[in-house]
Amino acid sequence: MNAVRKQLPEVSAVRYARLPDPFEMWKGGALSGAQLAYESWGQLNAERSNAILLFTGLSPSSHAASSTPSPEPGWWERMIGPGRAIDTDRFFVMCVNSLGSCFGSTGPASVNPATGKIWRLNFPELSVEDIARAGFEAARALGIEQLDTVMGPSLGGMVVTAFAAVARGGARRLVSISGSSASSPFAIALRAVQREAVMSDPAWNNGQYAENERGPQAGMRVARKMGTITYRSAAEWSGRFGRSGLTEVGQRAVESALARVPPGFGPRFAVETYLEAQAEKFVRVFDPNCYLYLSRAMDCFDIAEHGVAPDIYRRSGIAKALVIGVESDFLFKVEEQEQIARDLQAAGIPTTFAHLHSIEGHDAFLVDLPHFDAAIRGFLNS
Amino acid sequence: MNAVRKQLPEVSAVRYARLPDPFEMWKGGALSGAQLAYESWGQLNAERSNAILLFTGLSPSSHAASSTPSPEPGWWERMIGPGRAIDTDRFFVMCVNSLGSCFGSTGPASVNPATGKIWRLNFPELSVEDIARAGFEAARALGIEQLDTVMGPSLGGMVVTAFAAVARGGARRLVSISGSSASSPFAIALRAVQREAVMSDPAWNNGQYAENERGPQAGMRVARKMGTITYRSAAEWSGRFGRSGLTEVGQRAVESALARVPPGFGPRFAVETYLEAQAEKFVRVFDPNCYLYLSRAMDCFDIAEHGVAPDIYRRSGIAKALVIGVESDFLFKVEEQEQIARDLQAAGIPTTFAHLHSIEGHDAFLVDLPHFDAAIRGFLNS
Repeated sequence: MNAVRKQLPEVSAVRYARLPDPFEMWKGGALSGAQLAYESWGQLNAERSNAILLFTGLSPSSHAASSTPSPEPGWWERMIGPGRAIDTDRFFVMCVNSLGSCFGSTGPASVNPATGKIWRLNFPELSVEDIARAGFEAARALGIEQLDTVMGPSLGGMVVTAFAAVARGGARRLVSISGSSASSPFAIALRAVQREAVMSDPAWNNGQYAENERGPQAGMRVARKMGTITYRSAAEWSGRFGRSGLTEVGQRAVESALARVPPGFGPRFAVETYLEAQAEKFVRVFDPNCYLYLSRAMDCFDIAEHGVAPDIYRRSGIAKALVIGVESDFLFKVEEQEQIARDLQAAGIPTTFAHLHSIEGHDAFLVDLPHFDAAIRGFLNS
Repeated sequence: MNAVRKQLPEVSAVRYARLPDPFEMWKGGALSGAQLAYESWGQLNAERSNAILLFTGLSPSSHAASSTPSPEPGWWERMIGPGRAIDTDRFFVMCVNSLGSCFGSTGPASVNPATGKIWRLNFPELSVEDIARAGFEAARALGIEQLDTVMGPSLGGMVVTAFAAVARGGARRLVSISGSSASSPFAIALRAVQREAVMSDPAWNNGQYAENERGPQAGMRVARKMGTITYRSAAEWSGRFGRSGLTEVGQRAVESALARVPPGFGPRFAVETYLEAQAEKFVRVFDPNCYLYLSRAMDCFDIAEHGVAPDIYRRSGIAKALVIGVESDFLFKVEEQEQIARDLQAAGIPTTFAHLHSIEGHDAFLVDLPHFDAAIRGFLNS
């Protein structure tokens, strides 16, 4: 069904949830035969009342944590498990690969059953609302009508605010991490240029790159490096890399880069080899058209399209909320998370706002685990 | 002599100063028959003691202000003139086009007299030190052995710190604006990705694009848009653009963009049309190889290569200094300017540090003229 799904290991923790058919898209158009890939940890109780639905950032798969069939560490490995902040002794945790992504969920890299061809740019416009609703439908496919908690970082932190608007009564608690209820013009500008880097690469070929080729790798590499720069902070890099030259570890990346650019024009500093390594990992697995759709969906999201934010939250059925923001995040500024918290409070929902001073910027949720662990553990136990 | 020089209007305020022949480059190699383009305003006094040498940021030409032969407004029009902050009733002001740039000065787009061919990637490695020393030699070509003041913003703010190291006794006063004495890993990362965008464009062709063609325009466009994002601030854009859609003014830019990308994938927000307009202006005039050389020179500059900073300044002959930094500048952080000021003070040089709260980020010196006017006027009058 999905071009990329073929690449998944045959034995895997990934499961697939059918979405309602047709699945109507928020901005028009519909999908038929659509599915979401997900993984889960812990046991669903008899009342089906202990489920946590976890949305991801732009690029991860549903593999948030390891399990017997998929033992490699997940993207939030140290947060999910028995006795961990997201305690799988108490909760049934499911992480969904976003609608529109390429790790088993339906998206632009999937086959359109009506034509037998890959959707590519004929995929309908994707909205953050679609990602939210598809995630909820994946939970409903397991018989879960109300989640204990809906949670997500980054894009996922936007998705949970959309969830409050489009899945009324769908969750009792909400955790929004380093998210936003409307992209800032600064973030829009950054993502627009990232997409332009991909679309300017002749190998993109208006989305018609060959299925078994790697497509606009040079453009994807530039886009991912730009993204990586915005996911951390200048202060972290000053401490971590300073002006160090190429390390031995980075030498492989240099050699790879030197094959593409003339001698003397490749990387010279350790920070460049870090970017190279991050880009290489991403380019190898992420479908360029899916990237464009997800990136644009983030730009276009604005909770105001659903009405006044406190009114939306008041009608959402959310009874308690945690919002986390990071001081050094310059992509999704802490003021944006503060706004989400204020809107939830204005709706009369008891809301904790955790303003963290982590140095790691937007990606702090992946790195500064002690602070995130404490905030999330405290909330889920409350 | 210079490929781009041909494009200058026949009647122009631009003059050319011959550099010593050969002109030895800081990191090795030498130029023969090299020149700097410059413009000047005001009169040099009989003692040749009233000269201000102005260096530019990465992209401007020597056209800092208008004059009868070149009446179009310059890049610092409202700062230079009779009675203005840089008062041409008192000072002889000369602005140089940086060595390595493409507006009349010798650089990778110039003809190498030894071969009769354009230098391109055979141009020797360019350093910030070369830009500083070439500027000083241009002043010496006019018989000026000591400047009243050496001044520069952005790249120019780096160049003046290099000037203190390589042109001892060359200036009595120094003004460094939004500069740095060593690029941070964050700035290095941003510029490395910008260069990669240019070098990834197949039209770059390892620097061998045709002389009369526009070369890697798509890559240059992405690079300049990335740059533009880092020259302003998120807060300024939130106020200026918010989430506004395309304006009528921006429609032309959209149409131009839609010719390159499929319908629905072009700009949707006002901020995107601003980026498009900025990129279009730049791509039309700036030589891609020159851009790569200047960008890399900034990455590699580190005053520590000359010794301990206060020692360098103590030997420089500088008797008084002004350093200006802007709170909202995230490309050249205000802490970097504070460091320059501290090093000057540690050298025993009376130094004013102006920490400005302009919202316009790195480019504030082009926009927030009242604050820059006051700081520079006060210093030059003191």
